[in-house]
Amino acid sequence: MVRGETLTVQTENRVELTDVTDQIVALVRGSGVREGIVSLWSMHTTFAVFINESQQALHADIKRLLEMMVARDADWMHNDPDHSDCDRFNADAHLRAMLLGHSLTVQVSAGELVLGQWQRVLVAELDGPRSRTLRIQIMGVS
Amino acid sequence: MVRGETLTVQTENRVELTDVTDQIVALVRGSGVREGIVSLWSMHTTFAVFINESQQALHADIKRLLEMMVARDADWMHNDPDHSDCDRFNADAHLRAMLLGHSLTVQVSAGELVLGQWQRVLVAELDGPRSRTLRIQIMGVS
Amino acid sequence: MVRGETLTVQTENRVELTDVTDQIVALVRGSGVREGIVSLWSMHTTFAVFINESQQALHADIKRLLEMMVARDADWMHNDPDHSDCDRFNADAHLRAMLLGHSLTVQVSAGELVLGQWQRVLVAELDGPRSRTLRIQIMGVS
Repeated sequence: MVRGETLTVQTENRVELTDVTDQIVALVRGSGVREGIVSLWSMHTTFAVFINESQQALHADIKRLLEMMVARDADWMHNDPDHSDCDRFNADAHLRAMLLGHSLTVQVSAGELVLGQWQRVLVAELDGPRSRTLRIQIMGVS
Repeated sequence: MVRGETLTVQTENRVELTDVTDQIVALVRGSGVREGIVSLWSMHTTFAVFINESQQALHADIKRLLEMMVARDADWMHNDPDHSDCDRFNADAHLRAMLLGHSLTVQVSAGELVLGQWQRVLVAELDGPRSRTLRIQIMGVS
Repeated sequence: MVRGETLTVQTENRVELTDVTDQIVALVRGSGVREGIVSLWSMHTTFAVFINESQQALHADIKRLLEMMVARDADWMHNDPDHSDCDRFNADAHLRAMLLGHSLTVQVSAGELVLGQWQRVLVAELDGPRSRTLRIQIMGVS
């Protein structure tokens, strides 16, 4: 059995983390798949999906690390009108998403998402605010 | 066919890499799946799974890079009692695991894990020593 | 249904990004799978696969970021004959591939690869030039 779904996330800031675990859990429960996998796919280059604990202090640390690794105002060529027709000045968002990743494949067992005690599915808006889409494909046996 | 398994890894140090390829290969061979995929999932926020060569010198380089990218003693908010109830001072472990990744989906073909010549499945303990669990879901046709 | 394929990429430079989206799309279309997933797996430790926009300016930024995060000429132990029998001096390539990732699992729906508007499948040669292999496993229902 293969079931496709979409999840929309409306973000409010340029860089923002959102915990979407509960929505994914609900889609898995509603799918009828008991044993299998669920693929989570960001439909955007500047919107990432990854696993971590959902805690405000840690979210602040993640945003700080992203700025340390990929400074927004570094002299990126993607932001340079002489080399790029991109007018969003969002090279940092492309590079940060690449480091966090655009997809996850999560296990489903006994009809539930397989997650550790502190693990949550987080999405990272890196060039918002925007309306973002996560495509979800649930695949397995009932 | 979908088969679930767990693999336990007892770590001995705070930061430590372990090659678990042989255990995964054995589970795949025992599953009866000939063509399909195997999902490897860390059940922890501070325990990662990824691909690389298994060589002591390279493992030392990986640990050094993790410290360069995410310094343990930087002023992370997750370690600050004013902002966090975490008493493990393990912000670095959360951030490093995020960069390495918590999961892999590997191909199975002709009953074997599909790996390149030097590729090994490595797990990274980032806040040990602890007992860690990797969940394994093998899915495909016999 | 499970279909295995291989894609060969001949690279021309030590560090080089190649857009392989069109080849993957063609393999998916030829597979007969309508709903499912496709696993893309680099068969090498120093060859990565990831998602981003395919634009020359951004590709230059990606290469620059890789050099900023993992300097080629840093004093890596993997490059030190006293600690390693590797004579390629390619520690940077191993570490960069680890950050970009060696695999992707992409959704297939209505017989097509599920990708966002600007998303392209890119492979990163990190220790070329060489002939590289990406293994592709397409799995799902027709």
